[in-house]
Amino acid sequence: MTNAIAALAGQQNFLVAGLMSGTSMDGVDAAIVRFDASARSPRAELLAFVTVPYPDELRASLADLTVGHDTTAEEIALLNMSVAVAFSAAFFEVCRGAGIDAKQVDFIGSHGQTVAHAPPIKGGAPVAGTLQLGPPGAIAALTEVTTVGDFRVGDIAMGGQGAPLAPAADYLLRRSEQCGRIILNIGGVANVTFLPRGCQRDEVVAFDSGPGNMVIDELYRVLFAGHGSFDSGGAAAASGTVSQPLLDELIENAYFNAVPPKSAGHREFGPRYAWQIQSRAQELGLPRADTLATVTSLTVDTIVYAIERFVAPLGEVSELYLTGGGVHNETIVSGLTRRLGGMTLKPIDVLGIPADAKEAVDFALLAREAVLGRPNVLPNVTGATKAQVLGTIAAGMSR
Amino acid sequence: MTNAIAALAGQQNFLVAGLMSGTSMDGVDAAIVRFDASARSPRAELLAFVTVPYPDELRASLADLTVGHDTTAEEIALLNMSVAVAFSAAFFEVCRGAGIDAKQVDFIGSHGQTVAHAPPIKGGAPVAGTLQLGPPGAIAALTEVTTVGDFRVGDIAMGGQGAPLAPAADYLLRRSEQCGRIILNIGGVANVTFLPRGCQRDEVVAFDSGPGNMVIDELYRVLFAGHGSFDSGGAAAASGTVSQPLLDELIENAYFNAVPPKSAGHREFGPRYAWQIQSRAQELGLPRADTLATVTSLTVDTIVYAIERFVAPLGEVSELYLTGGGVHNETIVSGLTRRLGGMTLKPIDVLGIPADAKEAVDFALLAREAVLGRPNVLPNVTGATKAQVLGTIAAGMSR
Repeated sequence: MTNAIAALAGQQNFLVAGLMSGTSMDGVDAAIVRFDASARSPRAELLAFVTVPYPDELRASLADLTVGHDTTAEEIALLNMSVAVAFSAAFFEVCRGAGIDAKQVDFIGSHGQTVAHAPPIKGGAPVAGTLQLGPPGAIAALTEVTTVGDFRVGDIAMGGQGAPLAPAADYLLRRSEQCGRIILNIGGVANVTFLPRGCQRDEVVAFDSGPGNMVIDELYRVLFAGHGSFDSGGAAAASGTVSQPLLDELIENAYFNAVPPKSAGHREFGPRYAWQIQSRAQELGLPRADTLATVTSLTVDTIVYAIERFVAPLGEVSELYLTGGGVHNETIVSGLTRRLGGMTLKPIDVLGIPADAKEAVDFALLAREAVLGRPNVLPNVTGATKAQVLGTIAAGMSR
Repeated sequence: MTNAIAALAGQQNFLVAGLMSGTSMDGVDAAIVRFDASARSPRAELLAFVTVPYPDELRASLADLTVGHDTTAEEIALLNMSVAVAFSAAFFEVCRGAGIDAKQVDFIGSHGQTVAHAPPIKGGAPVAGTLQLGPPGAIAALTEVTTVGDFRVGDIAMGGQGAPLAPAADYLLRRSEQCGRIILNIGGVANVTFLPRGCQRDEVVAFDSGPGNMVIDELYRVLFAGHGSFDSGGAAAASGTVSQPLLDELIENAYFNAVPPKSAGHREFGPRYAWQIQSRAQELGLPRADTLATVTSLTVDTIVYAIERFVAPLGEVSELYLTGGGVHNETIVSGLTRRLGGMTLKPIDVLGIPADAKEAVDFALLAREAVLGRPNVLPNVTGATKAQVLGTIAAGMSR
């Protein structure tokens, strides 16, 4: 009988599963990644990736929690286990699809399912917190594979935002000795990560530029009800004309001018914000396609502004890699391409990991760092008072 | 920079903190223990122990959760952090009191605060769960000491009750090559752990015999309102006479005859049960002291019955060690002494760890097993389908 966790610390190459579900709660992203031996600049090879939808009832219960519906401690305890079961099922499915024996996987890095995120706010409540369901102890039991999870709470305990964590993975996997790079993740909000040429970890700059898809999706679902849940390819936006008066008003938001580090979420750019925009669009008598064109332009313009104002002065940037659901919105991508003429825009896929798998791979990598006992968070990015080894580790059956 | 968790796996002697808060939520028990090098039969030396009361507001919020009051995911996230802060404060206090530099502590074993426990029930819901607040990742951040916690969820994931976990510690610390021993823990319920002479871990038998202090406390608080929250020393019970008719009725409970493994809690012997007894006592016209004498005798009689029926046939038992709050109830202790004439009854303190510190020490020991990568649960006791290394480990700052 060997010590499963300690044995891993002596390995150099790893076969790792990354499990992730984001705030959209579509399902569990599961990736199998091979990390090579190079410690300073690990290389990741994606062997398999699937997204396994949540059972409808579970998704509905989790969505209720996220919007603040009443619950009980017991319901949380049960959902905690249900999420672990769903994550474990996704793990077995990605193994099966890739023809990999689950027992060959060295460990799992699992983000869990965020159902509450209340990071510290200046002048806010004295206590902050975050809650990811799907405890590593249950996943390790169900899969018999050592599991690292619950990454965010330690950062919040140290006064950080518990986010973003991906820039630490970007630093390890995606920095270049040849040129400055931006990783632009267009998810619900848009995150900009700047990796200066040959940077050290404390030179990485990352922040949320503003809305990504969140406002677009919210308005599309109502304005174009019956035509799907998002503006596929950005076609609806492309059919409209940007309202400069509305766009000018929206740009007048203190958030966009605030100096990083800064992070945003539902509080800033959630449904309430979207409905204020729609209300103003109605006053202006805008056709629905024009409203959508305008908020799509808002995403593009605030990203461009953030890069020009907060990144460009810090150093040379010649490459920008796009990831997140926004890569599928051609109106966004063509807008960025037109406006950021000095940079080469590429899908992040060209670096080896497809955009859809990036977050799952990133948490596999953060788990690798945890297993190796290395700090895996950038405190200057999260605002925490110190770097730590985030993640708690539950032992699988020893081999 | 060393790998904090992996480095521990190579150590033989440990200075460990154990942190525990039970269902009474009086506060956080904090112990500092030294474990010696002998792997098969570790020896524990208690260096310091304190109980640090919860802040009133936190205790009230946690108590509300436990009885099923409405909450939100965000409130759970915030209380999760508040419990971690309280546990970390208790850790620093026990260190300070003992004159021990917190940095000298190798790791912390933290039970956390249970706010929901819904183990699998035959014929019950398909999903089970348990929720201990105070995540190890936050305690490790706040204390800078590697922390093991969240012990129960992995056992429940494997179909176990997630309890009792103490028998695994009893097996390691308290079994004897010379004689069969019972560890009798009289807490809210009464737990019997039988350690046959020279036993192997799969020979340990442990189960709940029935009520411990729970029913006594519940009735005392109302019948003797204004005289404290429990029957100090068992004096009120001693002043009454047992009602044999009522006692006979109470003994006619299928639970007491059920063959172990079995576990009980609020569901079986909580407030509702106490009030059924009080209602029956009123019908019988019993004076309040007689009611208390009767339920005190119920605790004694069901313990004696459990030992005679379910333990004595399994092997020789010559020593019984008492622990839990019930050791302070002289009416219980003298009743047991009188009825269990063939055994030597001793406070567990004579084995080296005072009763009040036992649970905190036990979780320090279970954490030690986790750090060493050894199974630390007895599946024949919890009902789980397999033994595992329970507990998830969050790295402190590497030294």
